[in-house]
Order: sequence, then structure tokens, then C-alpha cells
Amino acid sequence: MMLEGKVLVAQGGGPTSVINQSLVGVVLESRKFPQVTRVYGALNGVSGIINEEFVDLTQETTHNLEKIASTPSSALFSTRDKPDEEYCKKIFEVLKIHGIRYFFYIGGNDSADTVRIVNEQATESGYELRAIHIPKTIDNDLLVNDHCPGYGSAAKFVAQAFMGINLDVSSLPGVYIGVVMGRHAGFLTAASAMAQKFPDDGPHLIYLPERPFIVENFLSDVKDVYEKYGKCIIAVSEGIVDENHVPIITKLSGNVEKDSHGNVQLSGTGALGDLLVKIIKENLNIKRVRSDTFGYLQRSFIGCVSEVDQYEAREVGERAAQFALWNNVDGSVTIHRTGSYSVDYKLTSLDKVARLTKSMPDNFINEKGNHVTEEFRNYLRPLLGPDMPQAHRIRAPKVEKKLNK
Amino acid sequence: MMLEGKVLVAQGGGPTSVINQSLVGVVLESRKFPQVTRVYGALNGVSGIINEEFVDLTQETTHNLEKIASTPSSALFSTRDKPDEEYCKKIFEVLKIHGIRYFFYIGGNDSADTVRIVNEQATESGYELRAIHIPKTIDNDLLVNDHCPGYGSAAKFVAQAFMGINLDVSSLPGVYIGVVMGRHAGFLTAASAMAQKFPDDGPHLIYLPERPFIVENFLSDVKDVYEKYGKCIIAVSEGIVDENHVPIITKLSGNVEKDSHGNVQLSGTGALGDLLVKIIKENLNIKRVRSDTFGYLQRSFIGCVSEVDQYEAREVGERAAQFALWNNVDGSVTIHRTGSYSVDYKLTSLDKVARLTKSMPDNFINEKGNHVTEEFRNYLRPLLGPDMPQAHRIRAPKVEKKLNK
Repeated sequence: MMLEGKVLVAQGGGPTSVINQSLVGVVLESRKFPQVTRVYGALNGVSGIINEEFVDLTQETTHNLEKIASTPSSALFSTRDKPDEEYCKKIFEVLKIHGIRYFFYIGGNDSADTVRIVNEQATESGYELRAIHIPKTIDNDLLVNDHCPGYGSAAKFVAQAFMGINLDVSSLPGVYIGVVMGRHAGFLTAASAMAQKFPDDGPHLIYLPERPFIVENFLSDVKDVYEKYGKCIIAVSEGIVDENHVPIITKLSGNVEKDSHGNVQLSGTGALGDLLVKIIKENLNIKRVRSDTFGYLQRSFIGCVSEVDQYEAREVGERAAQFALWNNVDGSVTIHRTGSYSVDYKLTSLDKVARLTKSMPDNFINEKGNHVTEEFRNYLRPLLGPDMPQAHRIRAPKVEKKLNK
Repeated sequence: MMLEGKVLVAQGGGPTSVINQSLVGVVLESRKFPQVTRVYGALNGVSGIINEEFVDLTQETTHNLEKIASTPSSALFSTRDKPDEEYCKKIFEVLKIHGIRYFFYIGGNDSADTVRIVNEQATESGYELRAIHIPKTIDNDLLVNDHCPGYGSAAKFVAQAFMGINLDVSSLPGVYIGVVMGRHAGFLTAASAMAQKFPDDGPHLIYLPERPFIVENFLSDVKDVYEKYGKCIIAVSEGIVDENHVPIITKLSGNVEKDSHGNVQLSGTGALGDLLVKIIKENLNIKRVRSDTFGYLQRSFIGCVSEVDQYEAREVGERAAQFALWNNVDGSVTIHRTGSYSVDYKLTSLDKVARLTKSMPDNFINEKGNHVTEEFRNYLRPLLGPDMPQAHRIRAPKVEKKLNK
């Protein structure tokens, strides 16, 4: 029997380049079903639900929705609120009074947990509700999923940035450190490896949160590369930690900001990059040492998107609506790699995705813990889409010297 | 009479996204002329000339040259060397022994000065040489030129970055500071204004090196915007100075690096952004304050280029070869706007372009000195090319509240 009622969709956590594809996937697919009376969007994630900040997306034009789909960041805005049970009860009250029977929440592992709790509350009180979590995160750290929507585009930005850095640092040599997002998982930083085309291309060194960052090893790595190539390009994850899991940023700098969850602030500051530059300058005799912190550009830059990521983000939204409206089931939509390269989507139990995070597996990191493996490259390559730019070099023969023979 | 001999081309200063278009313009055009016996490229700018590091571009394939043209950064590499008269004499010796009769140098105002001196030396010693300067700089600060090749693409990157930042900060509100390159000229920072589409879009404030940066005014500007919109997006030029022309970075921070010319290091560090964040946090009661320093990404990012900039960079290279080889004259190729939008190229006397720099004219900066004018927007718009991405928003009607009436 068809459950008649309204659909509600919301977006949580950090924005990505393709999170609006999932939103539009849910909206356009839901609007086709006769049992759906309205499709609402909640502004500001879950906080917009408890405040009843809804917009009626049934009255949005398909044309504008398509335009929004290709716009990065969360069109319904977002929130960092992590709802507890009390918070979820309020959510549920609002869903009930508005006759919402289908709830879709696009976000990371915290959002999956929100969906899990809301779903439990509904079952307990006998209120029939379909609740589906739709994956997104540039960190690529959701369990069960082969990869997460949002990762491919952010990875493409990071790879393109390092391609450009390779050219820039070849032109004016020195040491360059690019600090990439990723508190616990190194997937995004690792994407920098895709910038390597020619044998001396960087990044020559890649440091991930999955392996301890030892200052002495770092310095000797940099020295070796610089002596070999006369330049050294380094990708560093903002979340690198020492042997005791202490973030390097806390260890090296006295004054750090913490967020409401007690996490050290990693983005929106150039501190880690500047500290690593200082260490190199103080210990190695290298003059030109520079760092950039990719910051918010890597997750919000307009005009750098992976086509594959775009399609998949759209499909997880569509599939979420289909699971709920055709099959009358709850869960988290997950992406599974079925071939090279093909994917399919499943509905996974929420408790298998909620809260937990995935790290880079061992076979993706080299033995020395300062770069990635070929297996990682093979894993990532299809996710970047077909239109990756390429760097090209002059191959003309050298001319014989006449004055300085 | 046709002057028979070799062509030499080199690239100087900071790389741009389209500097290789000019290189390839020179090479392909020069190769058509019967009096050209070889087309050489000097590696590492002028320093490669005195060291005779030449490659024979006559033996490079057209296909690979076309691929290089669309690759950012200097394919022949670059140098920060600023040659004096002694240095130029060495250059000239090398040109002579290799039978080089045509010299093309792609670069900014320092490179124009190099060409000027080499040209003078040649005339004095009676060695017949055509020497042409080809403009490039993301700073857009060359005199005589309406604008400079390289600026349009960097401006496009900055505008696209702020478009994304607008979406990101709308989604998770706060104060955001983006630090943009530009030591003396604010053109690149000003390009951020093109990100404004909707009435509350940022950047709400733009600080340029052309106007003194007064901390009290800055704080009151930020406060006003934040109270009005609940968010504040700021574009700041790395080169902002106080009333006494002291760089803010030097004033606020004790420990700064200086380069070989005594210039304070502005890029490759997040210091200025972090300092401005600190000032806001200490003085205004705003919790979420973030900064990014766009750094090297803005001049080297692969995959963000203005089509107009690309064509013009190619044409200045081609025209340079034509001026030297058809007309047998020296000078600097300059771009002139002839319509809305059309350009033409002239050959300008080197001393009118060498050394000097252009700042943002008064009619491009608003009265309060914290934003740009409509005239600036009209000036910049065509330079970004036809394919600027667009941000889109949901316009669906709000739903009436039921619980929290």
C-alpha cells in the first residue's frame, strides 16, 4: 500500500561541488510519484527542521532545479548541529505536524546518525516514516561505500592544483608545501598524486593522517628529493599527527582554536603550512620555501567538477527516492564498484554507516608512509571523470654551447 | 633588406596561465619567415641566455607546441634575475656568437627593461638586432596597455573562487577573508567583485593597495556588513599598506622574510590572512572567522583560463614576430581596446613600458576605498571570456509554520 504524504529533503555538514545534484535527484524523482503531495526542503539542515524553515520545492521550476544541480555548495544551506535524542524528538514532532512521510538527509556520517535516530523515534511512536540517508563528503570516509559523492570533484581540484604547482615550481624552483583538507582520512591529500605525469613531477612526498608524521623523517625526505631534483613538492594533510596521535598543528603551535566539538581548527588558517616552512628553513639550507593552504577553495570552487561525480551524486538522490517510494524501506544509499569502471547502488542499514569513519587502507599507502601506491591511483583514476587536463613539456633538442664550452 | 639570422625567445618573471600562448605565437609565426634560420628558446629566462641553455624550437612539433600553448606556466622556465648593464653585456655576447638577430622576451616591466638595455647595447656596438618585449603579468600593471595577457585568466580564477566562497559562506555563515596576489596594483583583488550576482553576495568589502588600510575602518566595515547580512566576505590584496605606505603584514607581524630586492615576502604564507582573522576575533564578537590565501593556485591552476586572454596572449606573440620580421622595428607590443569589446596591437617604445607600473585608476575604486565601481566591472567583464560559470539559487516559496507560529 502506498504511503501518502509529504517529502522533506535537507543537507548537512560541509558543502561539496555536487551535493545539489543529490538534492535535485531527490526532488525531481519524488515529484513523479502520485502518493507524494508536496516536496519540501528544510533550510539550514536539521536546525531548519526544528525551526520549521521549509521551502516548497514542488513549486520550483525544473529549469532552475537543473541550474542549481550544477551549482556547488548546499542550495538549502547547512548546519554543524549534531542532534542528540532530544533534538531528534523535536525534528520528529515537526515532521508529524506537517504530515511528512518521507525524509531524505544528504550528508556524512553524522547526518547518517541523525537519520538513524529519527527513524528509531518514528518506529517507537508508531508514526510511519521512511527515512533515507544520502551520502556526501569530500573526505571520502563513509564506510560500506566504495567512494563518496563529492570526493571525485574535490580530488580533481587537488590534482589540478598540483599539476599547476608542478609547472610553477619547475619554472621558479624551490620547496612547495600544499596543505589539503582531511582531518582523519587522507583520501583527498592522496589525490595530489594524480598530478604526476613526467618522472620528476611532484608531489614527491605525500603525508597522510593515517601514518605518524615524524619531523626528522620529513626533513630527511625533503633533503633527498631536493638534492635529486633541485625542487621538492609536498602534499600534506591538515590532519597529520605524531606517533602519539597528537595533531602536528597543536604540537608545534601554542595557540589553536577549538570548535564546539573540541576539534582543533584545521581549515581557514595557514598555520600548519607556515610551521612546516619554518622547520625546513631552520634545518635545511634551502632558500625558496613556500606553502599554500588550499582551504575552502578545494570544496567550493565553481567550475571544477568531475563528470562521474556529478552523475553519481545525481543518481544517489534519485535512487534514494526510488528506495523509499517504490520499496518502502529505510537506510543509507551506498555506492558499490561493480566493474572497471561501473557502479551500482544499494540500500544499507543505517547503523553500518552512521558515526563511523573509513581511513585509507594499507594497500593505498607506500611502505615509507610518505606517498601512495599504484593501487590507489587505479582506484581514484575513474572518479576524476574523462576530462582531466594535461600538462605538456617542450621536448626540443638542446643547442650546443659556443661560449661556455 | 631582410636581416637573416636566428630567433631567440625567453620567458621572465612569474608564470601565468597563458604565457605559453605567447611563446607558441612567436615560434610558429617566426618559423614561417625565410630569413629565420633557427628558432631557439632560452631556458630559465635571461639567466639561460648567459649560460647558453638553448633548445632548438625549430625541431619541436607543431602538435606539441599547440599542447604547450594550452599548458599554464612558463614552458621555458623562468628567472627572477634583474639584469644590470654588465649582465646585459653578457647576454649580448651570447646573442652575437650564436648569430641571433631577433630577440623576444615575454615578461613584465622588468623584462621590458632588460629588452631596452640589450637593445641599446646592440645599437652602440653596431650589431644589428631586433629586440621585442611581449607583455604578460597577472598583476595587470604594465603601462600603455589597456590590460595585460595573463590577467584575464587569473582574474577569472579569483572571481570563480569568490563565487564558490559566496555559496560556502551562505551555507555555513561567518566572516571569510580571501587574500589575493598583488603587491602594488589591486586589479587582481578587484576581480573578486565579479562574483557578485545576488544582492547579498560577497565580496562585501574589497581592500586594495591603492588605498590606505586603516584597521578601525576595517573593523567598522566588517561589523556593518555582518549586522546587515549575518555574513561578511572580504577580498584583501596581499600588498595592502597603511597611511605611511608601510605594508600591513610588516606592521602587524614582527617576523617577515625579505627577498633579494628587499621586498617583504607576501605570497607562499598565510600570515596576513591569519593576522586579519585575529584582529576581527579580538575586536568583534564573531565566532566563525576564516581566511584563505589564494597563493600560487591563482596563477598556476590548470583548467581555469579565459578564452579571450588565451587568444590575446597568442596574438601578442604572433604580432611581436610580425613587427620584428616584417617591419624591422623594436619595442614592446601593447594591447589597446578599440571597441566594446575589440582590441588591436601596437608597438610602443620600450622606455614607456620598462620599469614603471600602473595602479588601479581612481574611477575604478569606490569613494570609501573599500570596493570597486561599476566602471571597473565594465572594464573587466569582457576579459573574463564568454564561459564564466554562474551560481543559482532556490526561489521556491516558504512554507507556513505550524508549530512555531
